[in-house]
Amino acid sequence: MNPTPLDPKLDLSFERIVDVPRELVWKVWTTPEHLMPWFCPVPWKVIECEIDLRPGGLFRTVMQSPEGQQFPGDGCYLEVIANEKLTWTNALLPGYRPLAAGEHTDSTVDFKFTATIALETRGTGTRYIATVRHGDEASRKQHEAMGFYEGWGIALDQLLVYVKTMRG
Amino acid sequence: MNPTPLDPKLDLSFERIVDVPRELVWKVWTTPEHLMPWFCPVPWKVIECEIDLRPGGLFRTVMQSPEGQQFPGDGCYLEVIANEKLTWTNALLPGYRPLAAGEHTDSTVDFKFTATIALETRGTGTRYIATVRHGDEASRKQHEAMGFYEGWGIALDQLLVYVKTMRG
Repeated sequence: MNPTPLDPKLDLSFERIVDVPRELVWKVWTTPEHLMPWFCPVPWKVIECEIDLRPGGLFRTVMQSPEGQQFPGDGCYLEVIANEKLTWTNALLPGYRPLAAGEHTDSTVDFKFTATIALETRGTGTRYIATVRHGDEASRKQHEAMGFYEGWGIALDQLLVYVKTMRG
Repeated sequence: MNPTPLDPKLDLSFERIVDVPRELVWKVWTTPEHLMPWFCPVPWKVIECEIDLRPGGLFRTVMQSPEGQQFPGDGCYLEVIANEKLTWTNALLPGYRPLAAGEHTDSTVDFKFTATIALETRGTGTRYIATVRHGDEASRKQHEAMGFYEGWGIALDQLLVYVKTMRG
């Protein structure tokens, strides 16, 4: 885990024990063809995904609203520890490049964040911990108000349905 | 090396072969007591230094001008590969936390950057490559105008003098 403690004023965290092995959770988080089917709560969908799976590499999705509007979001991976921990931020571009002054390359949200998915084995399942760090309280509140808990919960439900389809 | 190619409009790079082994260059870049003596071109000096040497850890210096004015600068390490590669940015805080909207916690410069020191063995010496990535051309120009090449060159000269004193 990130040894820097969470700050409840600035950060959001979501945790659940799920009944699929962490290797499969890792796979569907890190492979475009396996991420696109579950990543957005329907009826929104992901219509493009690009993953350069290394620290400093690109994580890009393009989401599409039910009305057909497109929302590209670019981020940079920071930590890539297979089957264990994936961290990325929309505050840097690939190659860890800072954004241009005033630039915001993630049109899916109005604020900067750094997100971590941490996975731990629990029996035949996985302890799934999603954490999102923000720079100020307004960003955390905005993320919460736009449905952080509901959105990440629905995406995880969709992930589980998808993984079970893959397996069987 | 960072496999993301440099952009000459946005980035600055400085390279030299030096006659000290890379383990010693690494040591004086990553230990506060060994960094403070050489890090700023004199008559400026570093009066405080804090290093939490891990990806996501704090890199903090406080520089003091000859007139006594103090300039704290906080950054976050991104890559820590012993004796080989050190990358940090002033665009994130420790724990990879984004800055607050409009915040700038590095008072030593007006812009955001990500810096890498890469070290390669060359005989009994070291190929020393310093690279700084910026988000926009204005930042690169400003960094160049404030004396990037001269400043990093003098700091490296001071580093070499210091390392040779350590050994002697």
